[in-house]
Amino acid sequence: MKIRPLADRVVIKRLEAEEKTKSGIVLPGSAKEQPQMAEVVEVGPGGVVDGKEIKMEVSKGDKVIFSKYAGSEVKIDGEEYTILRQSDILAVVE
Amino acid sequence: MKIRPLADRVVIKRLEAEEKTKSGIVLPGSAKEQPQMAEVVEVGPGGVVDGKEIKMEVSKGDKVIFSKYAGSEVKIDGEEYTILRQSDILAVVE
Amino acid sequence: MKIRPLADRVVIKRLEAEEKTKSGIVLPGSAKEQPQMAEVVEVGPGGVVDGKEIKMEVSKGDKVIFSKYAGSEVKIDGEEYTILRQSDILAVVE
Amino acid sequence: MKIRPLADRVVIKRLEAEEKTKSGIVLPGSAKEQPQMAEVVEVGPGGVVDGKEIKMEVSKGDKVIFSKYAGSEVKIDGEEYTILRQSDILAVVE
Amino acid sequence: MKIRPLADRVVIKRLEAEEKTKSGIVLPGSAKEQPQMAEVVEVGPGGVVDGKEIKMEVSKGDKVIFSKYAGSEVKIDGEEYTILRQSDILAVVE
Amino acid sequence: MKIRPLADRVVIKRLEAEEKTKSGIVLPGSAKEQPQMAEVVEVGPGGVVDGKEIKMEVSKGDKVIFSKYAGSEVKIDGEEYTILRQSDILAVVE
Amino acid sequence: MKIRPLADRVVIKRLEAEEKTKSGIVLPGSAKEQPQMAEVVEVGPGGVVDGKEIKMEVSKGDKVIFSKYAGSEVKIDGEEYTILRQSDILAVVE
Repeated sequence: MKIRPLADRVVIKRLEAEEKTKSGIVLPGSAKEQPQMAEVVEVGPGGVVDGKEIKMEVSKGDKVIFSKYAGSEVKIDGEEYTILRQSDILAVVE
Repeated sequence: MKIRPLADRVVIKRLEAEEKTKSGIVLPGSAKEQPQMAEVVEVGPGGVVDGKEIKMEVSKGDKVIFSKYAGSEVKIDGEEYTILRQSDILAVVE
Repeated sequence: MKIRPLADRVVIKRLEAEEKTKSGIVLPGSAKEQPQMAEVVEVGPGGVVDGKEIKMEVSKGDKVIFSKYAGSEVKIDGEEYTILRQSDILAVVE
Repeated sequence: MKIRPLADRVVIKRLEAEEKTKSGIVLPGSAKEQPQMAEVVEVGPGGVVDGKEIKMEVSKGDKVIFSKYAGSEVKIDGEEYTILRQSDILAVVE
Repeated sequence: MKIRPLADRVVIKRLEAEEKTKSGIVLPGSAKEQPQMAEVVEVGPGGVVDGKEIKMEVSKGDKVIFSKYAGSEVKIDGEEYTILRQSDILAVVE
Repeated sequence: MKIRPLADRVVIKRLEAEEKTKSGIVLPGSAKEQPQMAEVVEVGPGGVVDGKEIKMEVSKGDKVIFSKYAGSEVKIDGEEYTILRQSDILAVVE
Repeated sequence: MKIRPLADRVVIKRLEAEEKTKSGIVLPGSAKEQPQMAEVVEVGPGGVVDGKEIKMEVSKGDKVIFSKYAGSEVKIDGEEYTILRQSDILAVVE
């Protein structure tokens, strides 16, 4: 089974704390909006969203930092994913 | 009797828990916005909505994930449906 | 006496519960936004509304589902009507 | 003395309850936004408002239904008027 | 000393109650947004404001009705003025 | 050290009460939004801001009236400045 | 490891109080929105953001003043960074 996100949406899988530590990224416990790290699993086609042309800038497999409270969570085949808009992705970690 | 949704609206029928389990999708009980799974029953014609050209990307019979709090519920001939905008549909499950 | 709605407004007359039952539509008593069924009585000319070209998609006599809290109520010659924007109409029932 | 409304504004004079009854219009006492009936006294020139071309659709002498809470009240030469935007006028009664 | 308002701003001087009475305008003490009467002292050049072309429709010396809560007050050379946007002026009294 | 404001931002230095008195401007202590007087210290380049072409209308040395609650304060080399958008400047005093 | 910010986002590293003092900038402890000083570490490519063409005006190594509550914090390889939009940067200090 496969999720095909619509428009400018992206399906991501959150990275576990251990993976974050291995990759050297630690997210602080402040009261501010906390970004999270995840891996991109599926990318929507982009196109015209709200009358604006959106070009997708992330690809499957990218490690990304995204806003903690963005998106919706869904569990498929026992795995948890988050579906969010590309504009909720802050940066790609290379 | 048939519902003809206007503009970018879509009529969907929520999938029961058993169907979700059979299809391998389980929705977690978190405090965040919870997506739901449904089958598309009717699709509006799209066209110009709020001055923006909307092209319909979903089709009758598609299994879709949508925002739990989106749309309006209506019961027709004993069946419950939800009418929502296409932009409230997050992804198609294939 | 006749009401001529301006712009993208539509005058509708709510259908009584009995009519809804006869037509097979029952509206559930949930806490969510509840759609209502009504018959279209008058349709505005459409045209440019908020700088956007609006084409009217409903016609006199259409049975429509609309958002419960949309529009303004008015009583004319002893009959109650609701005046709302076409965008508050969710679907036409055929 | 004469009021010349700017842009898409309209000066109206509310019709008294007796006039409403004579004309067959009664406004219900519900908790919802209540439309009111009035006669158009002056009409602004329209033109570009908020960057959008507004064409005036009402004329002096029109009986109109408008949103109760719209506009500002002013008393001139002992007469009370309301100044509102044309978009706050719901319909013309003919 | 002279105030040169920027863009679509207008400098006005409120008319005293006596002047209002002389000119036949009385403003009611209702709970709704109350318009006020004033004389236009300085008019900005208009031009592009928020990406929209604004043409100034009022002139120095015009008696205008404006929204009570609009604008900012300033005292210059012992005189109190209000600086507001032209869109907060409802009508010109002639 | 020099501050180079971005886009349509302006760096201003508030005028002290004495300077205001000397220049004949007194700002009233009302409950409404209170404009303040200041001198323009640095002016951003303008250009496209939020997709709209902004032309700078104020110059270094201009005495301006601005909204009290607009902008951010910063202290540089012991001097306090305010950085705000040009649209928060109400008028130039000449 | 490197952060590649998307669109109009910028990665900055806050300057410590000592660095601010050395550079002559002191930020006051007022109740208003407080700008902060930081050094630009990475700059996104700009391009079309929300349908508007954004050109990046800051460069790696720039000392910038930004809104205190803007952006998201992230710790990478033991260093804390803030990711924000260029429009949250008020000025460059030269």
